[in-house]
Amino acid sequence: MFAIGLDLGGTKIAAGVVAPDGRVVVSAVRPTPVGGGVPSVLAELAEAAQGVAAQAGLAVGEVEAAGLACPGPVDPATGTVSYAPNLHWRQVPVRELLSARLPWPCVVLNDADAAALGEAHFGAGRGAELMLYLTVSTGIGGGIVRQGELLTGAHGAAGEFGHQVIEPGGPLCRCGRQGCLEALASGTATARRAVERLRQERPSLLQQLAGGDPERITAALVGEAAARGDSLAAEVIAETASYLGIGVANLVAAFDPDRVVIGGGLANLGKRLLDPVRQLVRREVLPPAGERVEIVQATLGAFSGVVGAAWAARGAVSCS
Amino acid sequence: MFAIGLDLGGTKIAAGVVAPDGRVVVSAVRPTPVGGGVPSVLAELAEAAQGVAAQAGLAVGEVEAAGLACPGPVDPATGTVSYAPNLHWRQVPVRELLSARLPWPCVVLNDADAAALGEAHFGAGRGAELMLYLTVSTGIGGGIVRQGELLTGAHGAAGEFGHQVIEPGGPLCRCGRQGCLEALASGTATARRAVERLRQERPSLLQQLAGGDPERITAALVGEAAARGDSLAAEVIAETASYLGIGVANLVAAFDPDRVVIGGGLANLGKRLLDPVRQLVRREVLPPAGERVEIVQATLGAFSGVVGAAWAARGAVSCS
Repeated sequence: MFAIGLDLGGTKIAAGVVAPDGRVVVSAVRPTPVGGGVPSVLAELAEAAQGVAAQAGLAVGEVEAAGLACPGPVDPATGTVSYAPNLHWRQVPVRELLSARLPWPCVVLNDADAAALGEAHFGAGRGAELMLYLTVSTGIGGGIVRQGELLTGAHGAAGEFGHQVIEPGGPLCRCGRQGCLEALASGTATARRAVERLRQERPSLLQQLAGGDPERITAALVGEAAARGDSLAAEVIAETASYLGIGVANLVAAFDPDRVVIGGGLANLGKRLLDPVRQLVRREVLPPAGERVEIVQATLGAFSGVVGAAWAARGAVSCS
Repeated sequence: MFAIGLDLGGTKIAAGVVAPDGRVVVSAVRPTPVGGGVPSVLAELAEAAQGVAAQAGLAVGEVEAAGLACPGPVDPATGTVSYAPNLHWRQVPVRELLSARLPWPCVVLNDADAAALGEAHFGAGRGAELMLYLTVSTGIGGGIVRQGELLTGAHGAAGEFGHQVIEPGGPLCRCGRQGCLEALASGTATARRAVERLRQERPSLLQQLAGGDPERITAALVGEAAARGDSLAAEVIAETASYLGIGVANLVAAFDPDRVVIGGGLANLGKRLLDPVRQLVRREVLPPAGERVEIVQATLGAFSGVVGAAWAARGAVSCS
C-alpha cells in the first residue's frame, strides 16, 4: 500500500506519494507559509498531503499512513517538536495537530532523520550496519541509522553533526557557538568564504557568474566556477572539504560506522568535495574505523526526506 | 554465580572475582610483562584469573565465565584485537588464546567499553537510557551504552572520543592527528601545559610539590596545587576543563545522551573539572540535549573495567 511523505522546510513543503519500494509516484512542492504561525503551516501540510493523494487518484483507504519530516528535535514518544528556530516553534505537538487534519495515522520525525532513513532503506545507505547521514546545505544536520532503525538519542535530538566545534573562537554559528562545523563547511559558510576572498584577493570567474553582485554568490556558484577552472573557487571548495573532513573524521572515530552518506546541496559537488574527505578520514582516523568506512554521496536527491518520512509512517503503522 | 573480570593495561593487569551484584569480592593487580610478547601477556592474564579464583576459594565450577578488558578495538564476533599500539599488537585473536588457557568461557572487549558497562550497570550510569562514558587519564577513551547494551560500531571501534580534533593545527596527538581532545585535555596534556607555563611564567607551588623536577609533574599534582590555592595550577585545570567541555558538548550534540559519566584519573578533580564542563554544555548545546543531559563523575574507580568485563562475560554465557 502507499504512504504519504511530507517534508517541511523553512521555505518550502515537499509532499509525495511513496510506494513500498521507495518510489515517489506523485510529488508536489509548495511554499511554507512562514508568517502565518502554526495553524497555517499545519493547514498547508494537510492540503499538500491530500493534494498528492488526489493527484495519484488514491482513495483514503488506499493510503496506509502519513509521515512528516520536520526541522528540530522531535520527541519520539509524543511527536512533539521541541525546538525549531527557523519556524519559531517551541514545544509544538505536531503529530496531534496533523492527525486532527488528516484521515490517516500520522508520524512525525526530524527532517535529517527522515532523509537518513530514506537513504538507509532506498538510497546510498542500503545494506549498511551503521550509517551516518550528513546533509550539507544551508546548515549541516544528520541522522544515525543502525540495522535499519534510527538512533534518535535520549530526547530525540541526536545527529546534530553540524554543531560540533572544530575551531574554538572561529566564525559565529547560528546556534550561538563559535567555530561549529556548520559555520565552516555549510553552503552558507562556503559562499561567505568565497565573498571574503573576492574582497581581499585576485579576480575570479565568480564575479562574472554572480553578475558582479556578491550577494548572489552561493555554494553552487562557487562549485560551478571551480568546475570551470577558477582557482579561487577551487581553493574555497578545498577549504570546505578540509573542514568537512575533520568533522566526518571526528564522527567516524566516535561512532565507527561502516558507511557515511553525504547529502544536501553541497553533495552535488561530488568527487571535488568527497575525495578530500575520504583521504583525510583514511589518513587520520585510527584503524579499523578509518580504513574500513565508506564515504558516499546520497542518491535520493531532494526527496530523501519525503521517502524516509513515508517509510517511518508505514513502519509505525505496521508495528502498532 | 561469580564471574572473573580482567583488565589489561599498558603497565598493569587488574583481576577480580565479581559477584552478580557487581561487588568485587577479591582483587589483585600485577605488572604487565610488556616486553615478553603475546604469549607471556596471555600467560600472565590466565595466572591472574586463576589466582583470584583460588584466593576467593572458588572451585572451577563456581565461576561462570571470564571477561577481559583489553586496549584497542575488539572485533565483537571473534574477540580479536585489531590494533593496540601500547602493546604493539595487531590482529591478535585474544579470546581464542585466553580460552585455551582458562577452564571458563571467555569474552574479550575494549577496556573503555568494559568500564562503560561497569558504570552503566553498577555505577554512575545506572538507569540511563543512553550513557556516554569518557575515561580521562593518560589518554582519553570512551564507550557508549544504550538500554544497558554496548554500541561498539560496525568494526568494534566506536567510542574513540579522545580522537576528535577540536583545534586543527594544535598539539600533536599520539594518534598522529593534531589538536585531538586527547592532546589537549588528557592527564598527559594537562601536565605538559603546566610544565610549559612554569617555564614561561611566575613561580608556583607546583615547583615545590614536584621537588623542582618538571618531569615529576602529573595532572594529579596540578590538581593538588590547585586545591591548595595555586593560581597557575588552577588556570591549567580550567583550561583542561574548557577543552573537555568542548569535546563533551560535541558528543552531546551528536549522540543526545541522557547521561555522560566521566571516569579515569582526572575525574578525581571532581567539581573543579566537571562544573565548567556542565556549564559549557548547558550554555552551548541546543535544547533539549544540552538542557537535559546529566554530567556526573564515575563511581567505580579503578575497578570499573574489571566489573564491566565480568558483567559482559556473564551476559555472553547467559545468552548462548
